[in-house]
Amino acid sequence: MSDQVKYVLPESELPTHWVNLLPELPGDSHPPLHPATGQPIGPEDLSALFPMELIMQEVSGEPEIEIPEQVREVYRLWRPSPLYRARRLERALDTPAHIYYKYEGVSPAGSHKPNSAVAQAYYNRRAGVRRLVTETGAGQWGSALSLACQLFGLQCEVFMVGVSFDQKPYRRAMIEAWGGSVHRSPTGLTAAGRAHAAHADGSLGIAISEAVEIAAGAEDTNYALGSVLNHVCLHQTVIGQEAIKQLEMAGEMPDVVVGCVGGGSNFAGLAYPFIRRDMRAGSSTRYIAAEPSACPTLTRGEYRYDFGDSAGMTPLMPMYTLGHDFIPPPLHAGGLRYHGDAPSLCQLVHEGIVEASAIRQSDAFAAAIAFARAEGIIPAPEAAHALRAAFDLAEAAKEAGEAPVILIGLSGHGHFDMSAYQAYRAGELADLELSESQLREALSHLPEAPAIAG
Amino acid sequence: MSDQVKYVLPESELPTHWVNLLPELPGDSHPPLHPATGQPIGPEDLSALFPMELIMQEVSGEPEIEIPEQVREVYRLWRPSPLYRARRLERALDTPAHIYYKYEGVSPAGSHKPNSAVAQAYYNRRAGVRRLVTETGAGQWGSALSLACQLFGLQCEVFMVGVSFDQKPYRRAMIEAWGGSVHRSPTGLTAAGRAHAAHADGSLGIAISEAVEIAAGAEDTNYALGSVLNHVCLHQTVIGQEAIKQLEMAGEMPDVVVGCVGGGSNFAGLAYPFIRRDMRAGSSTRYIAAEPSACPTLTRGEYRYDFGDSAGMTPLMPMYTLGHDFIPPPLHAGGLRYHGDAPSLCQLVHEGIVEASAIRQSDAFAAAIAFARAEGIIPAPEAAHALRAAFDLAEAAKEAGEAPVILIGLSGHGHFDMSAYQAYRAGELADLELSESQLREALSHLPEAPAIAG
Repeated sequence: MSDQVKYVLPESELPTHWVNLLPELPGDSHPPLHPATGQPIGPEDLSALFPMELIMQEVSGEPEIEIPEQVREVYRLWRPSPLYRARRLERALDTPAHIYYKYEGVSPAGSHKPNSAVAQAYYNRRAGVRRLVTETGAGQWGSALSLACQLFGLQCEVFMVGVSFDQKPYRRAMIEAWGGSVHRSPTGLTAAGRAHAAHADGSLGIAISEAVEIAAGAEDTNYALGSVLNHVCLHQTVIGQEAIKQLEMAGEMPDVVVGCVGGGSNFAGLAYPFIRRDMRAGSSTRYIAAEPSACPTLTRGEYRYDFGDSAGMTPLMPMYTLGHDFIPPPLHAGGLRYHGDAPSLCQLVHEGIVEASAIRQSDAFAAAIAFARAEGIIPAPEAAHALRAAFDLAEAAKEAGEAPVILIGLSGHGHFDMSAYQAYRAGELADLELSESQLREALSHLPEAPAIAG
Repeated sequence: MSDQVKYVLPESELPTHWVNLLPELPGDSHPPLHPATGQPIGPEDLSALFPMELIMQEVSGEPEIEIPEQVREVYRLWRPSPLYRARRLERALDTPAHIYYKYEGVSPAGSHKPNSAVAQAYYNRRAGVRRLVTETGAGQWGSALSLACQLFGLQCEVFMVGVSFDQKPYRRAMIEAWGGSVHRSPTGLTAAGRAHAAHADGSLGIAISEAVEIAAGAEDTNYALGSVLNHVCLHQTVIGQEAIKQLEMAGEMPDVVVGCVGGGSNFAGLAYPFIRRDMRAGSSTRYIAAEPSACPTLTRGEYRYDFGDSAGMTPLMPMYTLGHDFIPPPLHAGGLRYHGDAPSLCQLVHEGIVEASAIRQSDAFAAAIAFARAEGIIPAPEAAHALRAAFDLAEAAKEAGEAPVILIGLSGHGHFDMSAYQAYRAGELADLELSESQLREALSHLPEAPAIAG
């Protein structure tokens, strides 16, 4: 079996619970604050947007939360997802490192996003909601939610970041194939959209504002977020739980876990079950969060309270932020264009448990091409950032004569991102570094809020 | 386990041999004939295009042929592929039928095509060939061969049918991501292309002529065909062998096997292992070959010798044909636009073992949408033809109060076919029936050749 490539779990090994890291997070926790009063928000403040079961998950102190059988039934359409040993890539890189990747591109939507979309659609359906509204960047989340709504009999409306809407017409077609409808954001349908009409490229922050505005104003309609929030990270932890079992099948444990970070849900889903295990066993895995250098939230942002959206309608959340009205350049990894990050992940970075690394777009694509030519799978541009970070680790291992076990979160495939590959091939893919003055300008609009202890 | 959805085999259950149905085909066999002399061709006649090991497979009388370990190593990147019980679809159709689908979209290229591409690249590499040239319709085969060539260190050049080149720009990007190069056929690079310059949409027949011409004229270059030939059908039989094991896991055996047919390799790969088992066990499974009504080779073509390409450079093959210079309408299922079919499949149709069914494009897409909304996976337009045929069977089962086991070959996903879904949604997807006069005109150009006994 020394040449085994895939580690596949039977359906019976599908996790029965989600892992909630909240009660075990090290350091001080900081509650979200009401945008108007500055006071900690309570469940009722969120009830216009989310069903109560998701709000309870958002603040839960339970270490584990059971996955409803109807959610597991849908998960079984593609889960457990495969873990691969990247034997061909190791040979291509000529590295002694053992490289594994957990592949979430096997979901119908092609990414990890349905893990939470399905759960959110389920709980909203149970609460009698008829329509979910959301935003999407690269289209991964929007398509995942459209699929999930279709499976649970809900309507779905997606505000898609303008630049991604233009770059990825077939993501839109995918959302529509599953019955959802798509708006190019900013739209004229909302006050938030009209206020940002000049930003034709749009941003995740603007699209969030639009979706929240619609959901807050309609009785039968809720909002769904694809990342950042605790309950979203929670739902993703099926990834890491499966990976632990699969690495045990391979007789290995990771020295380093690498994932890309946009809002943090993919990274959290893979890493949190490992982090919990480490905390309980006292082991010391490295965790590396790979983010784009054009939207360097964790590496260059400020750790403090900020709004989740551009218009300042969401609660203030404690996170590394570039400023809630920061509009990142039209990066091809559309899923990594968020101005902030999941508060739980930010806390882990702040506490030194997770390291952050900024990756240039062109370096990410070079790694993606090398990966595709060795392993076959064409990675999503988001996942390519994690690949680049892993390649650097594999290179360092070779120089040091070490053989670490590297686990990569391959969050999705790039079938709907081929225009980015075309641009890379044509030499048209710019490296969009954020200058110091741009950074200072972005950070100058931060709202007044209590400081987070350093 | 009554709710099990996926039947997944471990890598250790990957088939070790391909199934060769040739020695067990019922009825008279008719050898391919040399296009100039009309005499049966010998191995040496094919040696300008193919390596000797593939030529020997083409005419082999062995019932099984061992799969080289280096080919199996690549297969393990995605094989064994999953078999699904379509429980949600059964509920959506409200049918008592048990519906299973064998899903080949898990390959990196998204279809069954790499099963043969990998084998062909391997044998060509062993023979010292440096470059493979081929044609592609929808791009499924071209991308599969580009991937396979990359994995075995060969150059790859693809002549892509003009209309598909225009409809599927991202298939081209995919071929290029794996290192292959793409030409829009007809090109000015070949005599065959120049002769058909007026047919701007192109056809598989023209593209084959172009690729064959290049391969025949260059010492270090061979040709690779993605369907029709015996050795291609042979390589695909890993599909059916796995499906037999997986249905045994489920405790069922199919009453009907349904697959789409362009050149026949996907259908053969699924059905031939079952047909062999039937022949040996005396059982009586139904086999249904679903083809587009716009290119109705098996249902309306003539059973006789014809060229495999438009220019008349290939051997004459015994098959149902619409005429070698038939140019089908710009059907969105680009993989089903071939004027003929695999001779082995044609013989099975002629002998009454396989039934053929012509499916309208719009009916196929309606089935594809319903399938996507029940099962999640967005099917390739080719596979949608098989789905439509299966839906009709499920409907009939309901009316008859029967519960047959239906096995569908889901040959690939539709991620690179979303423009077709857009067209369907917009009501722009025409049903392109072949009129009687068009059929007569197409059949009037058939070459002189011995008749096939009726």
